[in-house]
Amino acid sequence: MTGAQFGADQPVGVAVLGYGNVGSEVVRILQEQVDDLQQRVGAPLALRGIAVRDASRDRGLDPDLVTTDARALVERDDVDIVVELIGGIELPRELVLAALSSGKSVVTANKALLSEHTGELAEAAEARNVDLYFEAAVAGAIPVIRPLTQSLAGDRVHRVAGIVNGTTNFILSAMSETGADYGETLAEAGNRGYAEADPTADVEGFDAAAKAAILASIAFHSRVSASDVHREGISAITPQDFESAHALGCTIKLLSICERVPSPGGRDRISARVYPALVPDSHPLATVGGAFNAVVVEAENAGRLMFYGQGAGGAPTASAVMGDVVMAARNKVNGGRGPRESKYANLEIAPIGDIPTRYFVNMQVADKAGVLSAVAAEFAQHGVSISTVRQEGEGTGARLVVVTHTASDSALSATVSALEQLEFVTAVTSVLRLEGTHR
Amino acid sequence: MTGAQFGADQPVGVAVLGYGNVGSEVVRILQEQVDDLQQRVGAPLALRGIAVRDASRDRGLDPDLVTTDARALVERDDVDIVVELIGGIELPRELVLAALSSGKSVVTANKALLSEHTGELAEAAEARNVDLYFEAAVAGAIPVIRPLTQSLAGDRVHRVAGIVNGTTNFILSAMSETGADYGETLAEAGNRGYAEADPTADVEGFDAAAKAAILASIAFHSRVSASDVHREGISAITPQDFESAHALGCTIKLLSICERVPSPGGRDRISARVYPALVPDSHPLATVGGAFNAVVVEAENAGRLMFYGQGAGGAPTASAVMGDVVMAARNKVNGGRGPRESKYANLEIAPIGDIPTRYFVNMQVADKAGVLSAVAAEFAQHGVSISTVRQEGEGTGARLVVVTHTASDSALSATVSALEQLEFVTAVTSVLRLEGTHR
Repeated sequence: MTGAQFGADQPVGVAVLGYGNVGSEVVRILQEQVDDLQQRVGAPLALRGIAVRDASRDRGLDPDLVTTDARALVERDDVDIVVELIGGIELPRELVLAALSSGKSVVTANKALLSEHTGELAEAAEARNVDLYFEAAVAGAIPVIRPLTQSLAGDRVHRVAGIVNGTTNFILSAMSETGADYGETLAEAGNRGYAEADPTADVEGFDAAAKAAILASIAFHSRVSASDVHREGISAITPQDFESAHALGCTIKLLSICERVPSPGGRDRISARVYPALVPDSHPLATVGGAFNAVVVEAENAGRLMFYGQGAGGAPTASAVMGDVVMAARNKVNGGRGPRESKYANLEIAPIGDIPTRYFVNMQVADKAGVLSAVAAEFAQHGVSISTVRQEGEGTGARLVVVTHTASDSALSATVSALEQLEFVTAVTSVLRLEGTHR
Repeated sequence: MTGAQFGADQPVGVAVLGYGNVGSEVVRILQEQVDDLQQRVGAPLALRGIAVRDASRDRGLDPDLVTTDARALVERDDVDIVVELIGGIELPRELVLAALSSGKSVVTANKALLSEHTGELAEAAEARNVDLYFEAAVAGAIPVIRPLTQSLAGDRVHRVAGIVNGTTNFILSAMSETGADYGETLAEAGNRGYAEADPTADVEGFDAAAKAAILASIAFHSRVSASDVHREGISAITPQDFESAHALGCTIKLLSICERVPSPGGRDRISARVYPALVPDSHPLATVGGAFNAVVVEAENAGRLMFYGQGAGGAPTASAVMGDVVMAARNKVNGGRGPRESKYANLEIAPIGDIPTRYFVNMQVADKAGVLSAVAAEFAQHGVSISTVRQEGEGTGARLVVVTHTASDSALSATVSALEQLEFVTAVTSVLRLEGTHR
């Protein structure tokens, strides 16, 4: 804590676990920016080792730095900061806990780990009074964690809404532009390196949900895990949805939304949810294209803030990791530590059924007089107020596109079930939410 | 440093100097958010006093809190953090130095003070190992200082370009929309509370230059003061400039630009400059309208990041101030301190004449054959390559609008002097830079 052991001659030791896209960039920066890093930390950063799975591959690294024994590397006495970039959950969990419990600060980009085990990790950091930093876990290079935990520490956050998954944003942006269908576009994303061989974690919203859990935890000073997040993926989105969205002046984005839900007379609750939603073209998130990420924060005094940049990729993510490494190293040298976990508010999660949003309902209908009034009557009967209705196509291609005012998930579900019973309605082809508008 | 004197029962004392737009919001938050602030700090924040110029005015405050003796308030033993929101330079300088040298951390929103006296203040903070925070000094509620000093601490910043003055952005946005002239729009801005009675600091770019100095200092780890910043205001911008800009697919914005200027074979230099410039409509800064602020940061690994939000106003600025207060208070409780001044790189300022940019030159010309070739010859003779030429109007209203490729300020100035000698050229009515494009 006093920093007596560090100084101009006494370096801060860094271990890097994992040498993939991000790990290799972190090592490159550590090796190239020696002087700048030393000046910024107040002591040299010394790379003590790199843990890899297969040491036999030639990576052009000094062989003395490379090890397959991550555990031994983490526990070396001359390692002060452990950078975890392995991916997965169980192995990194063990290594991070080992590092924290032996008094080392940890920097990780592992959102899955954090969103599952944040409590355990935070307590281990607390017990040894060390830093656990994870700026790179959400939105890559974009500073989001630090602004939320530090810059907005004197404000009250109402809402965080972001595009935090580059793969799905690439796919949706491409579908919006080309009119191609989901399967085709996913294949194209894979060919161009924007989608993994198994894209499930991205396209079904697991990655975005893990990030939503992290954002909700820090924005609302509560523990939120990935399983608390309502999650819908993008695989059911059709070219017709985009056509209808465009006709309404909207596009479709996969959003991670964390909201403070006021309870009149009671304690606020938290809504954390991930789903594809219509967003008006005029909304700042609508223009975030391709693999970019953006996060919009709404706070009581700050108003609306937006953060935009590259949400993935080796170098951008390494930039966020290295910012954390420098801050953790400064704390090793100067004493003190960064913000710890803040969970005092301990707000409950509101179920998705309690969260009113606007809806977009796309249905195939018979091309007959009376359809509109029959459909409108079902909405009215369930207390769901209609904002606009459009009739599209004709004959067997006839469709009705309804946009509602704010309604609860449960009222909308009941409406959709009733619509599906109507003789006139061939199928309700999609139900999406509309975000970023009022009422 | 050990934090032994703080804890659940031992509050962190806060003094607020100034009770204007921002000061009153800071006091409101301190009084309304007692529980949240205590949880976030780890000890209660106690408001010890508010220094005002005239204590006789009724502000609805507990009279025991109000004092006209700012100096005595600053030096009270039970004050740990001083929040300086007075404005001006000399008085705040004395008070901030008194606070720092008696071991109190300081939070200030005073860009003029910082851009003139940053060295002296930083040294006083260093001598007593206390925090000097100033997130609110640049771009109000938008976290910019903390991302630059912390999140990007492991990266190399190439460029920071921002719209950081709300008054001029309001005026330019309105001129762009309405076609009204500068004087009229300034008067309107005054009526609506967006311009001061004496608008000089805003419209002549002094405020933007102070902020550019602060941004350049922290982005490039060097001391940059306001007088190092090349500065041009917006008062000469005409409706014709906007007309021509729109015809080119551009708008006009007052930009604060801080750039790393590579010197092949030598040390990098810094360019810091404020001027109105044409910005392509497709550039992220082009859509920042009204009193909003935005800052774009380009870094080697992070790539391009953008931060957007409310750059002024009592509550948004107070949000940034309170974030700093909470961080400074945490450090008082836990020991440690935030990032200190970093000036190790000590880069020199490059004179504006050395900075190549693209230019937009608007001239009144005789409506005759041969004008274009005579004008083009002058550009060629001075080594300034033309990108596009547009002829606008006719007869006595005939104009030529030239957009150049990248040229040095000195080559362009020589060209303009030569153009003014040409018989065909009645007047060079404006010379503006074009930013946000390549070549």
